[in-house]
Amino acid sequence: MKAYEIQAGFGLDKLVQVERPDPTPGPMQVRVRVKATSLNSRDLMMVEGRYNPRQKLPLIPNSDAAGVVDAVGPGVTRVKPGDRVMSLFSQAWSAGEPTRAAQVSTLGGPLDGALADTMLLHEDGAVPTPAHLTDEEAATLPCAAVTAWSALVTHGALKAGDTVLLQGTGGVSIFALQIAKLLGARIIITSSSDAKLARARTLGAHEGINYGTTPDWDKAARALTGGVGVDHVVEVGGAGTFEKSLRAVRPGGTVSVIGVLSGGAGTVPLTPILMQNLRVQGIFVGHRQSFDALNRAFALHAVRPVVDRVFEFSEARAAFEHLKSGAHFGKVVVRVG
Amino acid sequence: MKAYEIQAGFGLDKLVQVERPDPTPGPMQVRVRVKATSLNSRDLMMVEGRYNPRQKLPLIPNSDAAGVVDAVGPGVTRVKPGDRVMSLFSQAWSAGEPTRAAQVSTLGGPLDGALADTMLLHEDGAVPTPAHLTDEEAATLPCAAVTAWSALVTHGALKAGDTVLLQGTGGVSIFALQIAKLLGARIIITSSSDAKLARARTLGAHEGINYGTTPDWDKAARALTGGVGVDHVVEVGGAGTFEKSLRAVRPGGTVSVIGVLSGGAGTVPLTPILMQNLRVQGIFVGHRQSFDALNRAFALHAVRPVVDRVFEFSEARAAFEHLKSGAHFGKVVVRVG
Amino acid sequence: MKAYEIQAGFGLDKLVQVERPDPTPGPMQVRVRVKATSLNSRDLMMVEGRYNPRQKLPLIPNSDAAGVVDAVGPGVTRVKPGDRVMSLFSQAWSAGEPTRAAQVSTLGGPLDGALADTMLLHEDGAVPTPAHLTDEEAATLPCAAVTAWSALVTHGALKAGDTVLLQGTGGVSIFALQIAKLLGARIIITSSSDAKLARARTLGAHEGINYGTTPDWDKAARALTGGVGVDHVVEVGGAGTFEKSLRAVRPGGTVSVIGVLSGGAGTVPLTPILMQNLRVQGIFVGHRQSFDALNRAFALHAVRPVVDRVFEFSEARAAFEHLKSGAHFGKVVVRVG
Amino acid sequence: MKAYEIQAGFGLDKLVQVERPDPTPGPMQVRVRVKATSLNSRDLMMVEGRYNPRQKLPLIPNSDAAGVVDAVGPGVTRVKPGDRVMSLFSQAWSAGEPTRAAQVSTLGGPLDGALADTMLLHEDGAVPTPAHLTDEEAATLPCAAVTAWSALVTHGALKAGDTVLLQGTGGVSIFALQIAKLLGARIIITSSSDAKLARARTLGAHEGINYGTTPDWDKAARALTGGVGVDHVVEVGGAGTFEKSLRAVRPGGTVSVIGVLSGGAGTVPLTPILMQNLRVQGIFVGHRQSFDALNRAFALHAVRPVVDRVFEFSEARAAFEHLKSGAHFGKVVVRVG
Repeated sequence: MKAYEIQAGFGLDKLVQVERPDPTPGPMQVRVRVKATSLNSRDLMMVEGRYNPRQKLPLIPNSDAAGVVDAVGPGVTRVKPGDRVMSLFSQAWSAGEPTRAAQVSTLGGPLDGALADTMLLHEDGAVPTPAHLTDEEAATLPCAAVTAWSALVTHGALKAGDTVLLQGTGGVSIFALQIAKLLGARIIITSSSDAKLARARTLGAHEGINYGTTPDWDKAARALTGGVGVDHVVEVGGAGTFEKSLRAVRPGGTVSVIGVLSGGAGTVPLTPILMQNLRVQGIFVGHRQSFDALNRAFALHAVRPVVDRVFEFSEARAAFEHLKSGAHFGKVVVRVG
Repeated sequence: MKAYEIQAGFGLDKLVQVERPDPTPGPMQVRVRVKATSLNSRDLMMVEGRYNPRQKLPLIPNSDAAGVVDAVGPGVTRVKPGDRVMSLFSQAWSAGEPTRAAQVSTLGGPLDGALADTMLLHEDGAVPTPAHLTDEEAATLPCAAVTAWSALVTHGALKAGDTVLLQGTGGVSIFALQIAKLLGARIIITSSSDAKLARARTLGAHEGINYGTTPDWDKAARALTGGVGVDHVVEVGGAGTFEKSLRAVRPGGTVSVIGVLSGGAGTVPLTPILMQNLRVQGIFVGHRQSFDALNRAFALHAVRPVVDRVFEFSEARAAFEHLKSGAHFGKVVVRVG
Repeated sequence: MKAYEIQAGFGLDKLVQVERPDPTPGPMQVRVRVKATSLNSRDLMMVEGRYNPRQKLPLIPNSDAAGVVDAVGPGVTRVKPGDRVMSLFSQAWSAGEPTRAAQVSTLGGPLDGALADTMLLHEDGAVPTPAHLTDEEAATLPCAAVTAWSALVTHGALKAGDTVLLQGTGGVSIFALQIAKLLGARIIITSSSDAKLARARTLGAHEGINYGTTPDWDKAARALTGGVGVDHVVEVGGAGTFEKSLRAVRPGGTVSVIGVLSGGAGTVPLTPILMQNLRVQGIFVGHRQSFDALNRAFALHAVRPVVDRVFEFSEARAAFEHLKSGAHFGKVVVRVG
Repeated sequence: MKAYEIQAGFGLDKLVQVERPDPTPGPMQVRVRVKATSLNSRDLMMVEGRYNPRQKLPLIPNSDAAGVVDAVGPGVTRVKPGDRVMSLFSQAWSAGEPTRAAQVSTLGGPLDGALADTMLLHEDGAVPTPAHLTDEEAATLPCAAVTAWSALVTHGALKAGDTVLLQGTGGVSIFALQIAKLLGARIIITSSSDAKLARARTLGAHEGINYGTTPDWDKAARALTGGVGVDHVVEVGGAGTFEKSLRAVRPGGTVSVIGVLSGGAGTVPLTPILMQNLRVQGIFVGHRQSFDALNRAFALHAVRPVVDRVFEFSEARAAFEHLKSGAHFGKVVVRVG
């Protein structure tokens, strides 16, 4: 099998292509021939050593794979060779509360990941691919779409008529837009690009706020709700935007903490959380039952993920550079098979 | 003011038009000039004495009103003369758990109701009418739409991709169809009329089952879900259909009990409830926060209620006869003002 | 290994002791040397052919085991030889919603069960035994205690100050008493024996109703709540008592359907479910996360299950006869190892 | 009537005793002869101008009252003269989601409060006093006990066997201890005083951590849970302790934000919220249904609030000084009537 490894140290320039012997699936494991993988901020941070500097190397990065089952180990009954499947981010999280066991079973670190043409998955961590999706499209779901679903549906119980505020046009935010649309919610989205806001509107956003020209986007969002505040904010930015998110939300509303792009800390005020009865919910991807529910919804409505650009396997570094530039709208994919 | 009263006894023929002096709103009360009222099965059963034979007479029937505030009593701050409002079924139920106080504050029995050109409401029980609705349309919401919302959203937490089974094409079922559509659910509906099924499909139903030609509609519904069973059944029929509803639903699924058209009792098996971990949830309309949420969703999506037919005030008895015939699709309305 | 089989047909007299070769644990399986098993109504019904007449024979009955891990198959990491464990009723139900896969993984039918000195469990279905319990005590938990926990905690969210009504003094009801006590609820229990009621009071019940001398126990229960109704009924009787349970509960309250001792069907009125906004929740044991939570609570409070009587392995039939007599208070256990 | 007013400006020395004419209850209002009031940090901050510097003066401070209904306005039905009642902090919050209307109906600012011998309440904001409590005891419940209940029960759904971490021995923390005890939870409490920890243990705390001698109390708390982390932290300190609270809690656990004693802001890391799937829930007292549920639980278990000290009405300033000193254990009360 061929793969990329973070090998001698962290950094995009340390990402090297290697050959490994094909793995043999153990009990309850399946071997997947990977057709495509998508990139998440976490993957980039992992390669650059900003995610977990103590990660043992070498590591095959990336958690998101779509491919075809090629061989199954002893005891496997849920899937069979020839099945199209996607990877479950946390291989040991089926449902319910997260556990330590679930936390240490994540792909692309600590476990080897999807930037390879072959990988092993637990049978419970190999999720059937919806028939209407290509492998490139399916490869975008495991982290970003499941995260958006966990935030809005599993934890958020967003309902028709609620207002949700989305930040930027990265992978999670665009999936959140598509999911919020299915749920009948009103969608406000921010971006520094009018062109991206226009594109978000074609996908169903009701309102766009250019945070470049409207730095007080929290006040603008409140104004769009008659001064009440939005019901739910999907926070992807970190401390830089968090304080505004707290001011944009209504009494009793929810801020989902998804990403920490601008760094993990900052001066965050607790007073509005207290005084406004706010809920701040950390969302670290999600479990199998959420992924299954997402797939059912996407299949019913034939939702197609927004693929920004597809890179070849040999262009993996360029794909990471593209993600890092922030120029993308939706998901960045690497074709593998 | 003019009104209809159930006066000397129960029965459609006992419904008589009367004149009463205009009421004066007490503390926290508002006086509403009613423009339209809609009919529910409960109203018909009340007039015929099948709902509560011990109801004190005379009684002005009907719970659903839309109109305009005309005068307000001491202490009123939430609405003012000139506001368009709808009636809240249970005048004392704002949110949370139902209470005995909420149960005895329902309009159209035990309290006087909406089949009149003037009525008193508590200010908390006068709900602003969405701007996009006519009074005839708004008059359809208080019972049937709030019931459907309580079942699917407040209690049911129906989400995109879930499958819901609706029975027939009466008021509650058609609102449930429109709400399930907003939520992104898959909709299966039953009827004995292919024409009504076709019309339901134009409103967004995914599948229709003619229970006349397919008496085993429970099996047909299961088959449409790959043998798994539907996630949610909105049961309007009573014991006659309840047993099939239990067989149509998936393990862990929900049956909302809305109506008891075919009578309130029957041989109902408890075993499937137990063995399949089912939830059977009685839904008796709902509270103010549910009504507000419903209005927000309908306003966002400009949902228009399906009005089957509008009768004049003088034709109230004919309106009840029409409801009783079962020929309607959606809601039957009486124009008042 | 030695075991009892339902072999040539159903009936207590068809239960025969047999020798089988020791099984070898497959992938993710563990082999347990059973020390004790407890009896549930389901087990009795299974042996007598009243539970599932189409069950394939021979079958080793019983779902509840406590014992010691003796060998582990490939891939097992959660337990190791020497660990004290209890059986999980539904071997494939970890958390979240029940599935068809969970339903067909139940012990004592369709899978072979615990009335044997050796059995195979999935590693996820082998639950660590709380240190303060003997094996006889631990063997009482898998069905009855988990059922009571699922009803009151997982689904019921019973809280301090709530009132719960329990029926009789069988295994589930006595565990429900002990759990409700931990949760700070007020407990009303029924029995036809004043002696059993007195014993229930020593375990913490606040009120006892003798349904022999007070056939209208529903009215008595309402009276004890100032006419409001209880918050939660744990219904173990079936149609014979269900109608009264519906009348004993408050508006918006819950009836958990646990057992169907008196047969699975009957004339059950839907009207009170509708009119009182009741929730009727079927409880078919529960998942691993519920069992883990139960164990944590029992360990913290050093709760000891109420063991009515322990029979020797050779007396298994007598144990079933004792259960059938209804004379027991708490759980009937068979010592195995 | 006599009262204290914050009159000419903020500061404890600006708190002056005044005479006002007795108020007349308006529609749905009741007049209460106050017997006792208790002090909360919020009241102290309000007097000192640190809570809301734009609060209009004069203002009668304090939100917590217990007393006797003396007169009722038009339309009142829920209470009658002679009834013993307590004040509801947010007069317009009955149940469900908080609203802007609820937020501006709080006693002791913006509305006049309880440091007076007479006050007006909405009938829905006059809560019956449990019979087993004195007025001094009852006066401690409206803010601190309801806050603890909202955190642990209404939002937290704390269950038997869960572990909760409490900070310090102020009013909210000691009520949280008493409530967690009722619920069957395991209780870890921190303090800088071994004597206070010992006293907390006599009230039912399982473990005490002296944060003076063990500054890494977060690690100590984790160690007490076998390294897993606690299920729930009731955070009363603000930014100074919040970061440690995030480290003390298990994956998927909850931190309730109750108070901001050390100031409302600080460098708060978002990364652990994200990575550990944490929920941070702001708790701003609570609604009527929570207060009613609390009273029911306290009545069932005859729970007596911990009154640190009772001051005379003439000693109101000294009472505030005592609260400010932090020397108290439980609640500080002012006798009024």
